[in-house]
Amino acid sequence: MRHTDRANTLSPTLNRLQSVRPLVHCLTNEVVQEITANVLLAAGASPAMVVGKEEAYDFAQLASALLINLGTPYPERLESMRLAIAGAKAANRPWVLDPVAAGATRWRDQLMQEFLALRPTVIRGNASEIRALAGLSSSGKGVDAADSTESAIEAAKALSYEWGSVVFITGAVDRIVEGDRVEDVAGGVELTTLVVGTGCALSALTAAYVAVAPTPFEGAKAAALHTKLAAEEAFKTAKAPGSFHAHFIDALFSIAQTLKESA
Amino acid sequence: MRHTDRANTLSPTLNRLQSVRPLVHCLTNEVVQEITANVLLAAGASPAMVVGKEEAYDFAQLASALLINLGTPYPERLESMRLAIAGAKAANRPWVLDPVAAGATRWRDQLMQEFLALRPTVIRGNASEIRALAGLSSSGKGVDAADSTESAIEAAKALSYEWGSVVFITGAVDRIVEGDRVEDVAGGVELTTLVVGTGCALSALTAAYVAVAPTPFEGAKAAALHTKLAAEEAFKTAKAPGSFHAHFIDALFSIAQTLKESA
Amino acid sequence: MRHTDRANTLSPTLNRLQSVRPLVHCLTNEVVQEITANVLLAAGASPAMVVGKEEAYDFAQLASALLINLGTPYPERLESMRLAIAGAKAANRPWVLDPVAAGATRWRDQLMQEFLALRPTVIRGNASEIRALAGLSSSGKGVDAADSTESAIEAAKALSYEWGSVVFITGAVDRIVEGDRVEDVAGGVELTTLVVGTGCALSALTAAYVAVAPTPFEGAKAAALHTKLAAEEAFKTAKAPGSFHAHFIDALFSIAQTLKESA
Repeated sequence: MRHTDRANTLSPTLNRLQSVRPLVHCLTNEVVQEITANVLLAAGASPAMVVGKEEAYDFAQLASALLINLGTPYPERLESMRLAIAGAKAANRPWVLDPVAAGATRWRDQLMQEFLALRPTVIRGNASEIRALAGLSSSGKGVDAADSTESAIEAAKALSYEWGSVVFITGAVDRIVEGDRVEDVAGGVELTTLVVGTGCALSALTAAYVAVAPTPFEGAKAAALHTKLAAEEAFKTAKAPGSFHAHFIDALFSIAQTLKESA
Repeated sequence: MRHTDRANTLSPTLNRLQSVRPLVHCLTNEVVQEITANVLLAAGASPAMVVGKEEAYDFAQLASALLINLGTPYPERLESMRLAIAGAKAANRPWVLDPVAAGATRWRDQLMQEFLALRPTVIRGNASEIRALAGLSSSGKGVDAADSTESAIEAAKALSYEWGSVVFITGAVDRIVEGDRVEDVAGGVELTTLVVGTGCALSALTAAYVAVAPTPFEGAKAAALHTKLAAEEAFKTAKAPGSFHAHFIDALFSIAQTLKESA
Repeated sequence: MRHTDRANTLSPTLNRLQSVRPLVHCLTNEVVQEITANVLLAAGASPAMVVGKEEAYDFAQLASALLINLGTPYPERLESMRLAIAGAKAANRPWVLDPVAAGATRWRDQLMQEFLALRPTVIRGNASEIRALAGLSSSGKGVDAADSTESAIEAAKALSYEWGSVVFITGAVDRIVEGDRVEDVAGGVELTTLVVGTGCALSALTAAYVAVAPTPFEGAKAAALHTKLAAEEAFKTAKAPGSFHAHFIDALFSIAQTLKESA
């Protein structure tokens, strides 16, 4: 898809995001909380990291969507995540699972299976993570993907059928999978992978878009488009990861402003 | 107040900050620790996030001021906060309460009342949070303010009388309230609200200024002035949140350097 | 050493880092996780913050090196750190200790002695921290060094003899100490100290370099050189801490690209 076509496809969902300004309840990993909040704010959503088990259930009901990121799990925080998911489900809110570093340890894999069984609205991961979730061998190392997104499509279909989730595989070409339906979103720039948290923040942005889109599939696609357009825009001026980080946030914001004005 | 007048008002307190370089003990939320430390460093203070309950009491006595931010509370961390407040009080150090997302859940509100009863030197929040603390209805959503600071002045007065605190309401126009005294600090730019942690970092900077100012009221005012001047300076070059973040930190630093040299 | 000489000295170890892309398991403090990951990514290593005690032992064995940073310790996390160190030792992986704010409280000092006794491959701290570890008086305040690196050389030698560690003292002139051997790395810029986490991230980068260098001593030296060159490069364009942060990350990346190409 050309730039203009991608922007046109994004436009209606992005405009709904701007007018609704969905509150996204994020229970994410320790490393990426700041960039996650900044990505949501720049795109036009409202972040809230409420983590105590005493209020996670209640707060999830107030929010428009929930993000669960399993990057740095430990028992106390996992308990809050389970309560937040219960709260989101009770209020019929969508929730996104980010299975960071799936496949890294046996304990992590058991956790992943437990959370999959709670039937996430969307699962957003890289190819290595999606393969690992489906029980396939993966060449991921820690949080980096070492597999192409194409190699994870069958895994994604299996996960989608088993848990009723949209599966959103990100990489050089993003793949959005629901049952047998697969849609590609190409573009973006590789430098994005050198800024920690861009993938995790995309999961949060997916939660925001799913809260306002006609379907979870369309929500994931809008998040993919907004992110890839922003990365390309940022790369026009920033060729190294420190400035790219700032320009990427800027571009998420300016794309939102431009499409809003042209709406 | 014009730019020059605001800079002149800030100057003496800022110069004390530079020469004392107060150590600010921060027990803050998970999302904003990095920007909080960077704001303190840029302005000329020294941050320290010491969080274990085994050393929170002792460390609070070594520091010049304490920040307590209730953005992401959970029992273990709350215990450290209580000990740090006890340590700060034993050593006669000022402490600032940031009541993030007051009003969001019943559990959070009970916490807020418990911490208010420990009589913070300064309470720094947005209008929705200050209204919620005083038991008024608020239209805040998560961490965003949806009320004007003017609408929170009566709430601030009530809190100030009840707990002996200076109440520092931030927004388009900041209001510093002590008993019936109210002072306004206008200026700043709205883009600041799209960078996560700028409000939380301002609470930390308030703790730093209160440690060196003649009175807590003057300390809050200096923090307001320094922040608003820096935001305006940053906005001259940065119109989107990613670059604004970097330029805001730069401006906090360069204002400190400039006023120091002209002193 | 002149710029070219320093770059030439760095070049072979940096090239090994690029080709191996070592996975660094980081158990670090709450404040600096994002910058730590971004520094590793920019330099060409791969970060992973796996913190649960259920998987810390296993994950340490998968990684190429381990970082333990005692900036914000508390019992639960300390337990994960002990397990990660045991895992790293079982797999014969190097580990780096960052003794943040050593000397600040009695509890912290007891912790530091416990972790020293686990015989870190490298200890990376500022002069005040290294002096405190060795039981000497120090004028550090919180996380800031107030002593010259020269004043910590004898302390570093004593620590090196006692624990078999390389001791890497950072400051205006870095000193790398192993037994009686001392090597200096001069350069860098003072502004680096106004960006939180640059020291902590250097400890993580040291772990990455130690994983690929012929000896831990050479690894520490490469980390010092890469960091000082990057800081000088960043300072050419950025004179205030907000932009310096972004340009420093950029420079770590561009130095790696340039030396790689010229290899």
